[in-house]
Amino acid sequence: MSLVLNKTELADYLAEVFPQIRSDYAIDDLTEETITMRLKVEDRHLRPGGTVSGPSMFALADVSVYAMVLARIGRQALAVTTNCSLDFMRKPASGADLIGRCTLLKLGRALAVGDVLMYSEGSDKPVARATMTYSIPPRPVG
Amino acid sequence: MSLVLNKTELADYLAEVFPQIRSDYAIDDLTEETITMRLKVEDRHLRPGGTVSGPSMFALADVSVYAMVLARIGRQALAVTTNCSLDFMRKPASGADLIGRCTLLKLGRALAVGDVLMYSEGSDKPVARATMTYSIPPRPVG
Amino acid sequence: MSLVLNKTELADYLAEVFPQIRSDYAIDDLTEETITMRLKVEDRHLRPGGTVSGPSMFALADVSVYAMVLARIGRQALAVTTNCSLDFMRKPASGADLIGRCTLLKLGRALAVGDVLMYSEGSDKPVARATMTYSIPPRPVG
Amino acid sequence: MSLVLNKTELADYLAEVFPQIRSDYAIDDLTEETITMRLKVEDRHLRPGGTVSGPSMFALADVSVYAMVLARIGRQALAVTTNCSLDFMRKPASGADLIGRCTLLKLGRALAVGDVLMYSEGSDKPVARATMTYSIPPRPVG
Repeated sequence: MSLVLNKTELADYLAEVFPQIRSDYAIDDLTEETITMRLKVEDRHLRPGGTVSGPSMFALADVSVYAMVLARIGRQALAVTTNCSLDFMRKPASGADLIGRCTLLKLGRALAVGDVLMYSEGSDKPVARATMTYSIPPRPVG
Repeated sequence: MSLVLNKTELADYLAEVFPQIRSDYAIDDLTEETITMRLKVEDRHLRPGGTVSGPSMFALADVSVYAMVLARIGRQALAVTTNCSLDFMRKPASGADLIGRCTLLKLGRALAVGDVLMYSEGSDKPVARATMTYSIPPRPVG
Repeated sequence: MSLVLNKTELADYLAEVFPQIRSDYAIDDLTEETITMRLKVEDRHLRPGGTVSGPSMFALADVSVYAMVLARIGRQALAVTTNCSLDFMRKPASGADLIGRCTLLKLGRALAVGDVLMYSEGSDKPVARATMTYSIPPRPVG
Repeated sequence: MSLVLNKTELADYLAEVFPQIRSDYAIDDLTEETITMRLKVEDRHLRPGGTVSGPSMFALADVSVYAMVLARIGRQALAVTTNCSLDFMRKPASGADLIGRCTLLKLGRALAVGDVLMYSEGSDKPVARATMTYSIPPRPVG
Protein backbone atom coordinates (compact mmCIF):
# COMPACT_ATOMS: atom_id res chain seq x y z
CA MET A 1 0.00 0.00 0.00
CA SER A 2 2.98 2.35 -0.18
CA LEU A 3 4.33 4.38 -3.07
CA VAL A 4 7.15 2.85 -5.10
CA LEU A 5 7.91 6.17 -6.84
CA ASN A 6 7.67 9.55 -5.16
CA LYS A 7 6.44 12.65 -6.95
CA THR A 8 9.82 13.59 -8.43
CA GLU A 9 10.69 10.05 -9.51
CA LEU A 10 7.27 9.69 -11.08
CA ALA A 11 7.55 12.98 -13.00
CA ASP A 12 11.00 11.97 -14.25
CA TYR A 13 9.81 8.57 -15.39
CA LEU A 14 6.75 9.94 -17.17
CA ALA A 15 8.96 12.46 -18.96
CA GLU A 16 11.26 9.62 -20.03
CA VAL A 17 8.56 7.36 -21.48
CA PHE A 18 6.29 10.12 -22.81
CA PRO A 19 8.50 13.14 -23.55
CA GLN A 20 5.49 15.21 -24.58
CA ILE A 21 4.07 14.85 -21.07
CA ARG A 22 6.62 17.20 -19.51
CA SER A 23 5.32 20.20 -21.41
CA ASP A 24 1.61 19.43 -21.06
CA TYR A 25 1.16 18.08 -17.54
CA ALA A 26 2.30 18.65 -13.99
CA ILE A 27 1.81 16.52 -10.88
CA ASP A 28 0.29 18.79 -8.24
CA ASP A 29 -0.05 16.20 -5.52
CA LEU A 30 0.51 12.49 -4.90
CA THR A 31 -0.61 10.23 -2.04
CA GLU A 32 -0.85 6.46 -1.75
CA GLU A 33 -4.31 6.39 -3.26
CA THR A 34 -4.73 9.72 -5.06
CA ILE A 35 -2.97 11.89 -7.58
CA THR A 36 -3.78 15.40 -8.75
CA MET A 37 -2.60 16.15 -12.28
CA ARG A 38 -2.73 19.50 -14.04
CA LEU A 39 -3.21 19.97 -17.76
CA LYS A 40 -1.42 23.21 -18.58
CA VAL A 41 -3.97 24.40 -21.08
CA GLU A 42 -2.55 25.86 -24.31
CA ASP A 43 -4.20 26.73 -27.60
CA ARG A 44 -3.60 23.23 -28.94
CA HIS A 45 -5.90 21.79 -26.24
CA LEU A 46 -8.83 23.98 -27.21
CA ARG A 47 -11.78 23.60 -29.53
CA PRO A 48 -13.04 26.57 -31.50
CA GLY A 49 -14.96 28.61 -28.92
CA GLY A 50 -12.20 28.31 -26.37
CA THR A 51 -13.15 25.25 -24.31
CA VAL A 52 -10.84 22.34 -23.65
CA SER A 53 -11.39 19.62 -26.25
CA GLY A 54 -12.73 16.15 -25.53
CA PRO A 55 -9.50 14.39 -26.55
CA SER A 56 -7.56 16.66 -24.15
CA MET A 57 -9.89 15.67 -21.30
CA PHE A 58 -9.58 12.00 -22.23
CA ALA A 59 -5.80 12.39 -22.23
CA LEU A 60 -5.72 14.06 -18.81
CA ALA A 61 -7.81 11.24 -17.31
CA ASP A 62 -5.68 8.59 -19.00
CA VAL A 63 -2.39 10.11 -17.86
CA SER A 64 -3.70 10.55 -14.31
CA VAL A 65 -4.61 6.91 -13.83
CA TYR A 66 -1.44 5.74 -15.62
CA ALA A 67 0.70 7.92 -13.34
CA MET A 68 -1.14 6.72 -10.23
CA VAL A 69 -0.62 3.09 -11.19
CA LEU A 70 3.08 3.63 -11.94
CA ALA A 71 3.57 5.38 -8.60
CA ARG A 72 2.41 2.16 -6.97
CA ILE A 73 3.95 -0.53 -9.16
CA GLY A 74 7.09 1.24 -10.40
CA ARG A 75 8.54 1.52 -13.86
CA GLN A 76 6.17 -0.52 -16.02
CA ALA A 77 5.80 1.36 -19.28
CA LEU A 78 3.78 -1.51 -20.71
CA ALA A 79 0.59 -0.99 -18.73
CA VAL A 80 -2.18 -0.34 -21.27
CA THR A 81 -5.66 1.15 -21.07
CA THR A 82 -8.35 -1.44 -21.78
CA ASN A 83 -11.52 0.47 -20.96
CA CYS A 84 -12.71 3.97 -20.33
CA SER A 85 -15.99 5.66 -19.54
CA LEU A 86 -16.34 9.43 -19.66
CA ASP A 87 -19.15 11.82 -18.76
CA PHE A 88 -18.89 15.40 -19.95
CA MET A 89 -20.99 17.50 -17.63
CA ARG A 90 -20.08 21.18 -17.96
CA LYS A 91 -18.17 23.40 -20.33
CA PRO A 92 -14.60 23.88 -19.11
CA ALA A 93 -13.68 27.51 -18.46
CA SER A 94 -11.46 29.09 -21.08
CA GLY A 95 -8.16 30.41 -19.84
CA ALA A 96 -7.99 28.02 -16.86
CA ASP A 97 -5.89 24.91 -16.39
CA LEU A 98 -7.75 21.63 -16.09
CA ILE A 99 -7.20 19.74 -12.83
CA GLY A 100 -7.68 15.97 -12.65
CA ARG A 101 -8.24 14.40 -9.23
CA CYS A 102 -7.69 10.68 -9.49
CA THR A 103 -8.54 8.04 -6.90
CA LEU A 104 -7.17 4.53 -7.27
CA LEU A 105 -10.10 2.18 -6.65
CA LYS A 106 -8.38 -1.11 -7.35
CA LEU A 107 -4.85 -2.32 -7.90
CA GLY A 108 -5.06 -6.02 -8.60
CA ARG A 109 -2.54 -8.38 -10.09
CA ALA A 110 -3.84 -7.94 -13.62
CA LEU A 111 -6.19 -4.93 -13.60
CA ALA A 112 -6.14 -1.47 -12.05
CA VAL A 113 -9.13 0.88 -11.92
CA GLY A 114 -9.06 4.59 -11.22
CA ASP A 115 -11.67 7.35 -11.12
CA VAL A 116 -10.91 10.91 -12.20
CA LEU A 117 -12.91 14.06 -11.54
CA MET A 118 -11.85 17.01 -13.70
CA TYR A 119 -12.26 20.66 -12.76
CA SER A 120 -11.40 23.98 -14.33
CA GLU A 121 -8.97 25.52 -11.87
CA GLY A 122 -10.81 27.72 -9.41
CA SER A 123 -14.18 25.96 -9.74
CA ASP A 124 -15.59 23.22 -7.51
CA LYS A 125 -18.08 21.88 -10.08
CA PRO A 126 -16.63 18.97 -12.05
CA VAL A 127 -16.56 19.50 -15.83
CA ALA A 128 -16.11 15.79 -16.50
CA ARG A 129 -15.56 12.43 -14.87
CA ALA A 130 -13.78 9.36 -16.12
CA THR A 131 -13.04 5.82 -15.07
CA MET A 132 -10.08 4.07 -16.62
CA THR A 133 -9.10 0.40 -16.45
CA TYR A 134 -5.47 -0.51 -17.02
CA SER A 135 -4.18 -3.97 -17.78
CA ILE A 136 -0.84 -4.41 -16.07
CA PRO A 137 1.82 -6.88 -17.12
CA PRO A 138 2.76 -9.76 -14.80
CA ARG A 139 5.27 -8.57 -12.19
CA PRO A 140 7.34 -10.09 -9.41
CA VAL A 141 5.54 -10.49 -6.11
CA GLY A 142 6.84 -7.92 -3.60
CA MET B 1 -29.22 23.40 -4.00
CA SER B 2 -31.59 22.27 -1.25
CA LEU B 3 -33.56 19.08 -0.81
CA VAL B 4 -37.16 19.06 -2.01
CA LEU B 5 -37.90 15.77 -0.23
CA ASN B 6 -36.43 14.79 3.13
CA LYS B 7 -35.43 11.23 3.95
CA THR B 8 -38.89 10.14 5.10
CA GLU B 9 -40.72 11.78 2.23
CA LEU B 10 -38.28 10.23 -0.22
CA ALA B 11 -38.68 6.74 1.26
CA ASP B 12 -42.47 7.09 1.12
CA TYR B 13 -42.43 8.23 -2.49
CA LEU B 14 -40.08 5.44 -3.59
CA ALA B 15 -42.32 2.90 -1.90
CA GLU B 16 -45.31 4.38 -3.69
CA VAL B 17 -43.84 4.27 -7.21
CA PHE B 18 -41.80 1.08 -6.76
CA PRO B 19 -43.52 -1.01 -4.10
CA GLN B 20 -40.80 -3.65 -4.27
CA ILE B 21 -38.25 -1.07 -3.14
CA ARG B 22 -39.53 -0.96 0.43
CA SER B 23 -38.54 -4.56 1.11
CA ASP B 24 -35.19 -4.48 -0.68
CA TYR B 25 -33.68 -1.09 0.11
CA ALA B 26 -33.27 1.38 2.93
CA ILE B 27 -32.03 4.97 2.89
CA ASP B 28 -29.24 5.18 5.45
CA ASP B 29 -28.37 8.82 4.90
CA LEU B 30 -29.31 11.78 2.73
CA THR B 31 -27.63 15.15 2.21
CA GLU B 32 -27.99 17.77 -0.52
CA GLU B 33 -25.42 16.05 -2.73
CA THR B 34 -25.13 12.51 -1.41
CA ILE B 35 -27.28 9.55 -0.53
CA THR B 36 -26.36 6.26 1.11
CA MET B 37 -28.63 3.38 0.16
CA ARG B 38 -28.58 -0.12 1.61
CA LEU B 39 -29.46 -3.27 -0.30
CA LYS B 40 -30.84 -5.64 2.32
CA VAL B 41 -29.24 -8.73 0.86
CA GLU B 42 -31.49 -11.80 0.68
CA ASP B 43 -31.09 -15.10 -1.12
CA ARG B 44 -32.77 -13.72 -4.23
CA HIS B 45 -29.91 -11.21 -4.67
CA LEU B 46 -27.21 -13.87 -4.71
CA ARG B 47 -25.48 -15.88 -7.37
CA PRO B 48 -24.56 -19.50 -6.75
CA GLY B 49 -21.49 -19.26 -4.54
CA GLY B 50 -23.06 -16.68 -2.31
CA THR B 51 -21.97 -13.34 -3.76
CA VAL B 52 -24.35 -10.55 -4.69
CA SER B 53 -25.32 -10.81 -8.37
CA GLY B 54 -24.46 -8.26 -11.04
CA PRO B 55 -28.09 -7.32 -11.67
CA SER B 56 -28.54 -6.65 -7.94
CA MET B 57 -25.52 -4.31 -7.96
CA PHE B 58 -26.83 -2.58 -11.09
CA ALA B 59 -30.19 -2.16 -9.37
CA LEU B 60 -28.65 -0.67 -6.21
CA ALA B 61 -26.69 1.88 -8.26
CA ASP B 62 -29.74 2.73 -10.34
CA VAL B 63 -32.03 3.18 -7.35
CA SER B 64 -29.42 5.29 -5.54
CA VAL B 65 -29.07 7.84 -8.33
CA TYR B 66 -32.81 7.84 -8.96
CA ALA B 67 -33.51 8.51 -5.27
CA MET B 68 -30.88 11.26 -5.13
CA VAL B 69 -32.36 12.98 -8.17
CA LEU B 70 -35.91 12.75 -6.77
CA ALA B 71 -34.76 14.17 -3.44
CA ARG B 72 -33.69 17.26 -5.35
CA ILE B 73 -36.39 17.66 -7.99
CA GLY B 74 -39.38 16.16 -6.17
CA ARG B 75 -41.98 13.70 -7.31
CA GLN B 76 -41.01 12.97 -10.92
CA ALA B 77 -41.56 9.30 -11.48
CA LEU B 78 -40.82 9.72 -15.16
CA ALA B 79 -37.08 10.27 -14.92
CA VAL B 80 -35.40 7.46 -16.90
CA THR B 81 -31.89 6.01 -17.00
CA THR B 82 -30.19 6.69 -20.33
CA ASN B 83 -26.65 5.50 -19.65
CA CYS B 84 -24.70 3.47 -17.16
CA SER B 85 -21.12 2.37 -16.71
CA LEU B 86 -20.16 -0.21 -14.14
CA ASP B 87 -16.86 -1.61 -12.92
CA PHE B 88 -16.91 -4.76 -10.83
CA MET B 89 -13.73 -4.79 -8.78
CA ARG B 90 -14.01 -7.24 -5.91
CA LYS B 91 -16.23 -10.10 -4.85
CA PRO B 92 -18.93 -8.87 -2.45
CA ALA B 93 -18.86 -10.56 0.93
CA SER B 94 -21.58 -13.14 1.49
CA GLY B 95 -23.87 -12.45 4.40
CA ALA B 96 -23.35 -8.68 4.36
CA ASP B 97 -25.63 -5.93 3.12
CA LEU B 98 -24.41 -3.92 0.15
CA ILE B 99 -24.03 -0.19 0.77
CA GLY B 100 -24.17 2.31 -2.12
CA ARG B 101 -22.67 5.76 -1.57
CA CYS B 102 -23.94 8.06 -4.28
CA THR B 103 -22.67 11.54 -5.12
CA LEU B 104 -24.69 13.78 -7.40
CA LEU B 105 -22.20 15.22 -9.91
CA LYS B 106 -24.62 17.15 -12.09
CA LEU B 107 -28.24 18.16 -11.94
CA GLY B 108 -28.99 19.99 -15.16
CA ARG B 109 -32.30 20.86 -16.77
CA ALA B 110 -32.35 17.74 -18.91
CA LEU B 111 -29.69 15.39 -17.55
CA ALA B 112 -28.50 14.32 -14.11
CA VAL B 113 -25.32 12.35 -13.44
CA GLY B 114 -24.44 10.47 -10.27
CA ASP B 115 -21.54 8.30 -9.16
CA VAL B 116 -22.00 5.33 -6.83
CA LEU B 117 -19.37 3.41 -4.89
CA MET B 118 -20.62 0.09 -3.52
CA TYR B 119 -19.25 -1.64 -0.43
CA SER B 120 -20.00 -4.80 1.48
CA GLU B 121 -20.99 -3.53 4.89
CA GLY B 122 -17.99 -3.48 7.19
CA SER B 123 -15.38 -3.18 4.43
CA ASP B 124 -13.73 -0.02 3.10
CA LYS B 125 -12.70 -1.51 -0.26
CA PRO B 126 -15.30 -0.83 -2.95
CA VAL B 127 -16.70 -3.95 -4.62
CA ALA B 128 -18.04 -1.97 -7.57
CA ARG B 129 -18.52 1.51 -8.93
CA ALA B 130 -21.16 2.90 -11.25
CA THR B 131 -22.07 6.11 -13.00
CA MET B 132 -25.68 6.63 -14.04
CA THR B 133 -27.16 9.31 -16.29
CA TYR B 134 -30.83 10.13 -15.90
CA SER B 135 -32.91 12.04 -18.39
CA ILE B 136 -35.37 14.19 -16.52
CA PRO B 137 -38.62 15.47 -17.92
CA PRO B 138 -39.11 19.22 -18.44
CA ARG B 139 -40.18 20.87 -15.19
CA PRO B 140 -41.28 24.29 -14.04
CA VAL B 141 -38.49 26.70 -13.25
CA GLY B 142 -38.19 27.17 -9.50
CA MET C 1 -12.00 -19.83 -33.89
CA SER C 2 -14.38 -22.75 -33.55
CA LEU C 3 -17.05 -23.48 -30.98
CA VAL C 4 -16.10 -25.72 -28.07
CA LEU C 5 -19.75 -26.13 -27.01
CA ASN C 6 -22.66 -26.37 -29.43
CA LYS C 7 -26.04 -24.84 -28.72
CA THR C 8 -27.39 -27.81 -26.76
CA GLU C 9 -24.23 -28.34 -24.74
CA LEU C 10 -24.12 -24.63 -23.94
CA ALA C 11 -27.76 -24.56 -22.81
CA ASP C 12 -27.16 -27.61 -20.62
CA TYR C 13 -24.08 -26.11 -19.03
CA LEU C 14 -25.76 -22.76 -18.34
CA ALA C 15 -28.67 -24.58 -16.71
CA GLU C 16 -26.21 -26.50 -14.57
CA VAL C 17 -24.26 -23.48 -13.27
CA PHE C 18 -27.19 -21.05 -13.14
CA PRO C 19 -30.35 -23.10 -12.65
CA GLN C 20 -32.52 -19.99 -12.80
CA ILE C 21 -31.33 -19.39 -16.36
CA ARG C 22 -33.33 -22.26 -17.79
CA SER C 23 -36.65 -20.67 -16.98
CA ASP C 24 -35.71 -17.11 -17.98
CA TYR C 25 -33.59 -17.43 -21.11
CA ALA C 26 -33.37 -19.37 -24.34
CA ILE C 27 -30.59 -19.53 -26.91
CA ASP C 28 -32.15 -18.70 -30.26
CA ASP C 29 -28.98 -18.92 -32.33
CA LEU C 30 -25.24 -19.51 -31.97
CA THR C 31 -22.37 -19.02 -34.40
CA GLU C 32 -18.63 -18.77 -33.87
CA GLU C 33 -18.81 -15.05 -33.19
CA THR C 34 -22.44 -14.32 -32.36
CA ILE C 35 -25.18 -15.50 -30.07
CA THR C 36 -28.83 -14.55 -29.93
CA MET C 37 -30.41 -14.91 -26.50
CA ARG C 38 -34.06 -14.46 -25.62
CA LEU C 39 -35.36 -13.16 -22.31
CA LYS C 40 -38.74 -14.82 -21.85
CA VAL C 41 -40.40 -11.80 -20.34
CA GLU C 42 -42.58 -12.48 -17.30
CA ASP C 43 -44.13 -10.15 -14.75
CA ARG C 44 -41.05 -10.33 -12.55
CA HIS C 45 -38.97 -8.68 -15.30
CA LEU C 46 -41.23 -5.65 -15.55
CA ARG C 47 -41.33 -2.25 -13.94
CA PRO C 48 -44.62 -0.67 -13.03
CA GLY C 49 -45.96 0.57 -16.36
CA GLY C 50 -45.17 -2.66 -18.09
CA THR C 51 -41.70 -2.15 -19.57
CA VAL C 52 -38.78 -4.47 -19.01
CA SER C 53 -36.70 -3.27 -16.04
CA GLY C 54 -33.10 -2.04 -16.25
CA PRO C 55 -31.74 -4.92 -14.14
CA SER C 56 -33.45 -7.40 -16.49
CA MET C 57 -31.77 -5.76 -19.49
CA PHE C 58 -28.43 -5.76 -17.71
CA ALA C 59 -28.91 -9.45 -16.93
CA LEU C 60 -29.75 -10.34 -20.54
CA ALA C 61 -26.61 -8.58 -21.79
CA ASP C 62 -24.48 -10.19 -19.12
CA VAL C 63 -25.79 -13.69 -19.78
CA SER C 64 -25.39 -13.25 -23.54
CA VAL C 65 -21.70 -12.37 -23.37
CA TYR C 66 -21.07 -15.02 -20.71
CA ALA C 67 -22.73 -17.68 -22.87
CA MET C 68 -20.81 -16.57 -25.97
CA VAL C 69 -17.49 -16.76 -24.11
CA LEU C 70 -18.31 -20.21 -22.69
CA ALA C 71 -19.27 -21.48 -26.13
CA ARG C 72 -15.72 -20.66 -27.21
CA ILE C 73 -13.65 -21.58 -24.18
CA GLY C 74 -15.73 -24.40 -22.70
CA ARG C 75 -16.83 -25.06 -19.14
CA GLN C 76 -15.27 -22.20 -17.16
CA ALA C 77 -17.83 -21.13 -14.61
CA LEU C 78 -15.31 -18.77 -13.06
CA ALA C 79 -15.27 -16.13 -15.76
CA VAL C 80 -16.40 -12.86 -14.14
CA THR C 81 -17.70 -9.56 -15.47
CA THR C 82 -15.26 -6.72 -14.82
CA ASN C 83 -16.84 -3.87 -16.75
CA CYS C 84 -20.09 -2.95 -18.40
CA SER C 85 -21.46 0.03 -20.28
CA LEU C 86 -25.13 0.32 -21.10
CA ASP C 87 -27.18 2.77 -23.13
CA PHE C 88 -30.95 2.70 -22.75
CA MET C 89 -32.42 4.17 -25.91
CA ARG C 90 -36.09 3.28 -26.22
CA LYS C 91 -38.85 1.89 -24.07
CA PRO C 92 -39.15 -1.87 -24.51
CA ALA C 93 -42.56 -3.00 -25.73
CA SER C 94 -44.74 -4.60 -23.10
CA GLY C 95 -45.83 -8.12 -23.85
CA ALA C 96 -42.85 -8.93 -26.07
CA ASP C 97 -39.76 -11.00 -25.34
CA LEU C 98 -36.46 -9.17 -25.30
CA ILE C 99 -33.89 -10.41 -27.83
CA GLY C 100 -30.16 -9.87 -27.27
CA ARG C 101 -27.85 -10.07 -30.27
CA CYS C 102 -24.31 -10.44 -29.05
CA THR C 103 -21.12 -10.16 -31.10
CA LEU C 104 -17.83 -11.31 -29.63
CA LEU C 105 -15.32 -8.54 -30.36
CA LYS C 106 -12.32 -9.97 -28.57
CA LEU C 107 -11.38 -13.25 -26.97
CA GLY C 108 -7.92 -12.79 -25.50
CA ARG C 109 -6.03 -14.86 -22.98
CA ALA C 110 -7.23 -12.79 -20.04
CA LEU C 111 -10.08 -10.60 -21.27
CA ALA C 112 -13.10 -11.07 -23.53
CA VAL C 113 -15.26 -8.25 -24.86
CA GLY C 114 -18.72 -8.56 -26.34
CA ASP C 115 -21.32 -6.13 -27.65
CA VAL C 116 -25.05 -6.71 -27.27
CA LEU C 117 -27.91 -4.99 -29.06
CA MET C 118 -31.30 -5.59 -27.44
CA TYR C 119 -34.63 -5.52 -29.26
CA SER C 120 -38.25 -6.07 -28.34
CA GLU C 121 -39.25 -9.02 -30.46
CA GLY C 122 -40.79 -7.84 -33.71
CA SER C 123 -39.05 -4.44 -33.75
CA ASP C 124 -35.84 -3.51 -35.57
CA LYS C 125 -35.05 -0.48 -33.39
CA PRO C 126 -32.70 -1.37 -30.52
CA VAL C 127 -34.08 -0.59 -27.06
CA ALA C 128 -30.64 -0.79 -25.48
CA ARG C 129 -27.02 -1.61 -26.14
CA ALA C 130 -24.35 -2.98 -23.85
CA THR C 131 -20.69 -3.87 -23.88
CA MET C 132 -19.40 -6.35 -21.34
CA THR C 133 -15.83 -7.25 -20.45
CA TYR C 134 -15.17 -10.63 -18.89
CA SER C 135 -12.01 -11.63 -17.09
CA ILE C 136 -11.30 -15.26 -17.84
CA PRO C 137 -9.20 -17.53 -15.66
CA PRO C 138 -5.89 -18.88 -16.99
CA ARG C 139 -6.52 -21.95 -19.14
CA PRO C 140 -4.48 -24.57 -20.97
CA VAL C 141 -3.30 -23.54 -24.42
CA GLY C 142 -5.25 -25.43 -27.08
CA MET D 1 -34.81 8.98 -42.00
CA SER D 2 -33.05 10.67 -44.91
CA LEU D 3 -29.77 12.57 -45.04
CA VAL D 4 -29.94 16.35 -44.72
CA LEU D 5 -26.31 16.74 -45.82
CA ASN D 6 -24.63 14.60 -48.45
CA LYS D 7 -21.00 13.52 -48.20
CA THR D 8 -19.58 16.66 -49.83
CA GLU D 9 -21.79 19.05 -47.88
CA LEU D 10 -20.91 17.26 -44.65
CA ALA D 11 -17.15 17.40 -45.36
CA ASP D 12 -17.42 21.11 -46.18
CA TYR D 13 -19.35 21.87 -43.01
CA LEU D 14 -16.97 19.90 -40.78
CA ALA D 15 -14.04 21.76 -42.32
CA GLU D 16 -15.79 25.04 -41.63
CA VAL D 17 -16.54 24.40 -37.94
CA PHE D 18 -13.40 22.37 -37.17
CA PRO D 19 -10.71 23.51 -39.61
CA GLN D 20 -8.25 20.97 -38.22
CA ILE D 21 -10.56 18.16 -39.31
CA ARG D 22 -9.82 18.62 -42.99
CA SER D 23 -6.20 17.58 -42.62
CA ASP D 24 -6.77 14.70 -40.19
CA TYR D 25 -9.94 12.98 -41.36
CA ALA D 26 -11.71 11.88 -44.51
CA ILE D 27 -15.25 10.59 -45.00
CA ASP D 28 -14.95 7.28 -46.83
CA ASP D 29 -18.64 6.48 -46.95
CA LEU D 30 -21.99 7.81 -45.78
CA THR D 31 -25.44 6.20 -45.68
CA GLU D 32 -28.59 7.10 -43.77
CA GLU D 33 -27.50 5.14 -40.69
CA THR D 34 -23.76 4.66 -41.07
CA ILE D 35 -20.62 6.64 -41.72
CA THR D 36 -17.08 5.44 -42.33
CA MET D 37 -14.42 7.94 -41.27
CA ARG D 38 -10.68 7.65 -41.85
CA LEU D 39 -8.03 9.02 -39.53
CA LYS D 40 -5.08 9.81 -41.79
CA VAL D 41 -2.46 8.67 -39.32
CA GLU D 42 0.55 10.99 -38.98
CA ASP D 43 3.35 11.08 -36.42
CA ARG D 44 1.33 13.37 -34.17
CA HIS D 45 -1.28 10.63 -33.68
CA LEU D 46 1.24 8.08 -32.45
CA ARG D 47 2.54 7.05 -29.06
CA PRO D 48 6.17 6.07 -28.61
CA GLY D 49 6.34 2.56 -30.08
CA GLY D 50 4.38 3.54 -33.13
CA THR D 51 0.77 2.76 -32.27
CA VAL D 52 -2.09 5.20 -32.55
CA SER D 53 -2.63 7.00 -29.24
CA GLY D 54 -5.75 6.69 -27.08
CA PRO D 55 -6.71 10.37 -27.52
CA SER D 56 -6.50 9.93 -31.31
CA MET D 57 -8.86 6.94 -31.13
CA PHE D 58 -11.22 8.87 -28.87
CA ALA D 59 -11.16 11.75 -31.35
CA LEU D 60 -11.93 9.49 -34.34
CA ALA D 61 -14.92 8.01 -32.53
CA ASP D 62 -16.15 11.42 -31.44
CA VAL D 63 -15.84 12.95 -34.90
CA SER D 64 -17.54 9.94 -36.49
CA VAL D 65 -20.67 10.17 -34.36
CA TYR D 66 -20.72 13.97 -34.61
CA ALA D 67 -20.51 13.79 -38.39
CA MET D 68 -23.23 11.12 -38.56
CA VAL D 69 -25.56 13.22 -36.42
CA LEU D 70 -24.91 16.36 -38.49
CA ALA D 71 -25.57 14.47 -41.70
CA ARG D 72 -29.04 13.76 -40.36
CA ILE D 73 -29.95 16.98 -38.57
CA GLY D 74 -28.00 19.52 -40.64
CA ARG D 75 -25.80 22.38 -39.56
CA GLN D 76 -25.93 22.26 -35.75
CA ALA D 77 -22.44 23.03 -34.52
CA LEU D 78 -23.71 23.12 -30.95
CA ALA D 79 -24.30 19.41 -30.49
CA VAL D 80 -22.07 18.29 -27.60
CA THR D 81 -20.78 14.93 -26.38
CA THR D 82 -22.23 14.02 -23.00
CA ASN D 83 -21.02 10.46 -22.56
CA CYS D 84 -18.55 8.04 -24.01
CA SER D 85 -17.47 4.47 -23.38
CA LEU D 86 -14.40 3.02 -25.02
CA ASP D 87 -12.86 -0.45 -25.10
CA PHE D 88 -9.31 -0.80 -26.37
CA MET D 89 -8.93 -4.36 -27.58
CA ARG D 90 -5.87 -4.67 -29.81
CA LYS D 91 -2.78 -2.67 -30.68
CA PRO D 92 -3.37 -0.62 -33.83
CA ALA D 93 -0.94 -1.42 -36.64
CA SER D 94 1.75 1.18 -37.20
CA GLY D 95 1.80 2.74 -40.62
CA ALA D 96 -1.88 2.14 -41.31
CA ASP D 97 -4.78 4.57 -41.29
CA LEU D 98 -7.44 4.01 -38.66
CA ILE D 99 -10.95 3.40 -40.01
CA GLY D 100 -14.02 4.16 -37.88
CA ARG D 101 -17.29 2.47 -38.83
CA CYS D 102 -20.11 4.26 -37.08
CA THR D 103 -23.73 3.12 -36.78
CA LEU D 104 -26.37 5.54 -35.58
CA LEU D 105 -28.42 3.67 -32.97
CA LYS D 106 -30.72 6.47 -31.90
CA LEU D 107 -31.56 9.94 -33.09
CA GLY D 108 -34.05 11.36 -30.63
CA ARG D 109 -35.18 14.91 -30.04
CA ALA D 110 -32.61 15.54 -27.33
CA LEU D 111 -30.10 12.68 -27.47
CA ALA D 112 -28.30 10.78 -30.22
CA VAL D 113 -26.33 7.57 -29.70
CA GLY D 114 -23.80 6.06 -32.06
CA ASP D 115 -21.52 3.03 -31.96
CA VAL D 116 -18.08 3.02 -33.60
CA LEU D 117 -15.87 0.05 -34.41
CA MET D 118 -12.29 1.04 -35.25
CA TYR D 119 -9.94 -0.96 -37.47
CA SER D 120 -6.39 -0.56 -38.73
CA GLU D 121 -6.83 -0.40 -42.48
CA GLY D 122 -6.45 -3.86 -43.99
CA SER D 123 -7.43 -5.76 -40.85
CA ASP D 124 -10.86 -7.14 -39.93
CA LYS D 125 -10.21 -7.35 -36.18
CA PRO D 126 -11.41 -4.23 -34.37
CA VAL D 127 -8.70 -2.42 -32.39
CA ALA D 128 -11.26 -0.50 -30.35
CA ARG D 129 -14.96 0.20 -29.95
CA ALA D 130 -16.74 3.26 -28.68
CA THR D 131 -20.25 4.47 -27.96
CA MET D 132 -20.89 8.20 -27.90
CA THR D 133 -23.96 10.09 -26.73
CA TYR D 134 -24.57 13.55 -28.10
CA SER D 135 -26.93 16.10 -26.64
CA ILE D 136 -28.53 18.00 -29.47
CA PRO D 137 -30.01 21.46 -29.15
CA PRO D 138 -33.77 21.94 -29.64
CA ARG D 139 -34.58 22.22 -33.33
CA PRO D 140 -37.62 22.96 -35.46
CA VAL D 141 -39.86 20.00 -36.17
CA GLY D 142 -39.41 18.87 -39.79
